Amino acid sequence: MRKTKGAAVNKVAMGVDIGGTNSKLGYVDADGNCLASMSIPTRPNQAAKLFFRRLHENACRLFSRLPAGYDLIGIGIGAPNANFLKGTVENPPNLDWGMVDVLDEIRNYYDVPVAVTNDANAAALGEMLFGAARGMKDFILITLGTGLGSGIVANGELVYGADGFAGELGHTVVDPNGRTCGCGKRGCLETYCSATGLCRTVSELIGSTTIPSELRDVSFRELTARKIFRSARRGDPLAVKAFESCGATLGLKLADAVAHLSPEAIFLFGGMAAAADLLFDPARRSMEDNLFPIYRNKVKLLPSGLKENTAGMLGAGALIWNLTERH
Amino acid sequence: MRKTKGAAVNKVAMGVDIGGTNSKLGYVDADGNCLASMSIPTRPNQAAKLFFRRLHENACRLFSRLPAGYDLIGIGIGAPNANFLKGTVENPPNLDWGMVDVLDEIRNYYDVPVAVTNDANAAALGEMLFGAARGMKDFILITLGTGLGSGIVANGELVYGADGFAGELGHTVVDPNGRTCGCGKRGCLETYCSATGLCRTVSELIGSTTIPSELRDVSFRELTARKIFRSARRGDPLAVKAFESCGATLGLKLADAVAHLSPEAIFLFGGMAAAADLLFDPARRSMEDNLFPIYRNKVKLLPSGLKENTAGMLGAGALIWNLTERH
Repeated sequence: MRKTKGAAVNKVAMGVDIGGTNSKLGYVDADGNCLASMSIPTRPNQAAKLFFRRLHENACRLFSRLPAGYDLIGIGIGAPNANFLKGTVENPPNLDWGMVDVLDEIRNYYDVPVAVTNDANAAALGEMLFGAARGMKDFILITLGTGLGSGIVANGELVYGADGFAGELGHTVVDPNGRTCGCGKRGCLETYCSATGLCRTVSELIGSTTIPSELRDVSFRELTARKIFRSARRGDPLAVKAFESCGATLGLKLADAVAHLSPEAIFLFGGMAAAADLLFDPARRSMEDNLFPIYRNKVKLLPSGLKENTAGMLGAGALIWNLTERH
Repeated sequence: MRKTKGAAVNKVAMGVDIGGTNSKLGYVDADGNCLASMSIPTRPNQAAKLFFRRLHENACRLFSRLPAGYDLIGIGIGAPNANFLKGTVENPPNLDWGMVDVLDEIRNYYDVPVAVTNDANAAALGEMLFGAARGMKDFILITLGTGLGSGIVANGELVYGADGFAGELGHTVVDPNGRTCGCGKRGCLETYCSATGLCRTVSELIGSTTIPSELRDVSFRELTARKIFRSARRGDPLAVKAFESCGATLGLKLADAVAHLSPEAIFLFGGMAAAADLLFDPARRSMEDNLFPIYRNKVKLLPSGLKENTAGMLGAGALIWNLTERH
């Protein structure tokens, strides 16, 4: 693939958002515009090598659709269990990849800078460069999906920590004797605050209370965060209580995060964040109640400023733009 | 006061450690040697203006004792409730100072760079420049005294956060229904893990268990962390259990801190840290038990590498050296 088409005037970064089922790739300019994008099946049971070959083929085709004069300055990749410092993806939970040296895989096809990070870190960078965190030097982004991920920015830089795995707020402890977590521990935040956590709360409330609810007719297997959201919007008291419980637990642990980092803002991103006031109101209340007094009424709890369907790509592209003088 | 004596060849920073009873000042060279130091009474009931006048008078006298050829490059100050970003000390709990613009006060006497931060942040900088954290870019320092303070270094920089007050791990929440804290909240970490917290634990254990203990003869007012330490060293089972409980709670919250920051090491500093294995062993066990698996067996829990009696001054001096090319 040629890096440059015609007289290079415009720079573009490739952003790749690797998911368990589908992966998205797009070309992102310095202002966070996604100039062209597509989705490809990830095929999680195939070897990583085959994925990166397909990625390259599709990326070439997509690049040819850009207007003339674009120069590819680098490739940013967001992936589960990605390690920025090592350039690896390490045993991602939903992909049969084992340990993959992503930088090596990409170098088979491209001679441009490559960077890899996990989806929450990519989202935080996207938010900082192109979203609602523009101009902020200290903030936290929380991704609320199946699980709970987080990206932390301090002093204007993403915090990777000593081993590249900083920002796992989903596995801070709410209750050492609490719910069992997929990680092997008990009482992790994401067992309460995530789509899965919300379903577990509904199930517990069905058992522990006599609050009437249409969700008493739904099996746990059939239950989704979206169903609980719709019930709550219709005023179902048990569904509302589940959101309140989820928000209260989130707020408690966000207050802890503030005591570490004193961020200007905390952003909620992902499917669950769409629950808006149902989640934000109890989370904000609980956070303020649990904040050390010097932090009170200072920390904004905000929805992400990026659209969910492109945020992954933008964030991955931001990985490259963050290393580069943008204008 | 002359800044330079004779032909200036050696640079020195003044480090001032303001305490509730006494304050220490010293001249610290680029290698963290304290060339001259003294202690002055803080006189917490007098106005701050009088303190800074006395500080200047004493600092001049002390400077005259240095060999010829030293050049004062700046003044670093560690003080309770100090804000690096604003250069202020804001209503320190043990001083009748109200809100003090420290930079203004010092500028009455000196024309060199001045920086101010709280004691835990100063200790963290001291550890990074002159202590056991040399070469580390990501670490946390915990001060265990009457309360629990913390300084956080990420990406090689102290984390101040958006408002200058980051790093208050003492007020993260162990139990939202737990012990009342001086800050007005409940269940703060420092109500369990600090000299005061240890005494409270002993008192609770005396009431809640029948474990024999020589401490059953000591009133709460007479109780000190040092007494509990001596009892534990003599094998007193209740005193040992109090340390175990303190360490276990500390470890739980350190695991949370690791999930935020993935530090290379966590340093314990201050009086309580002298309890060594009595505290470190249960803290280390509990931290490992509560760590998200990717962090396990990676994070070192270490004693500070600085001597407690000079660490405050060195840390305050490090504030200046950290802004300066050292060699």
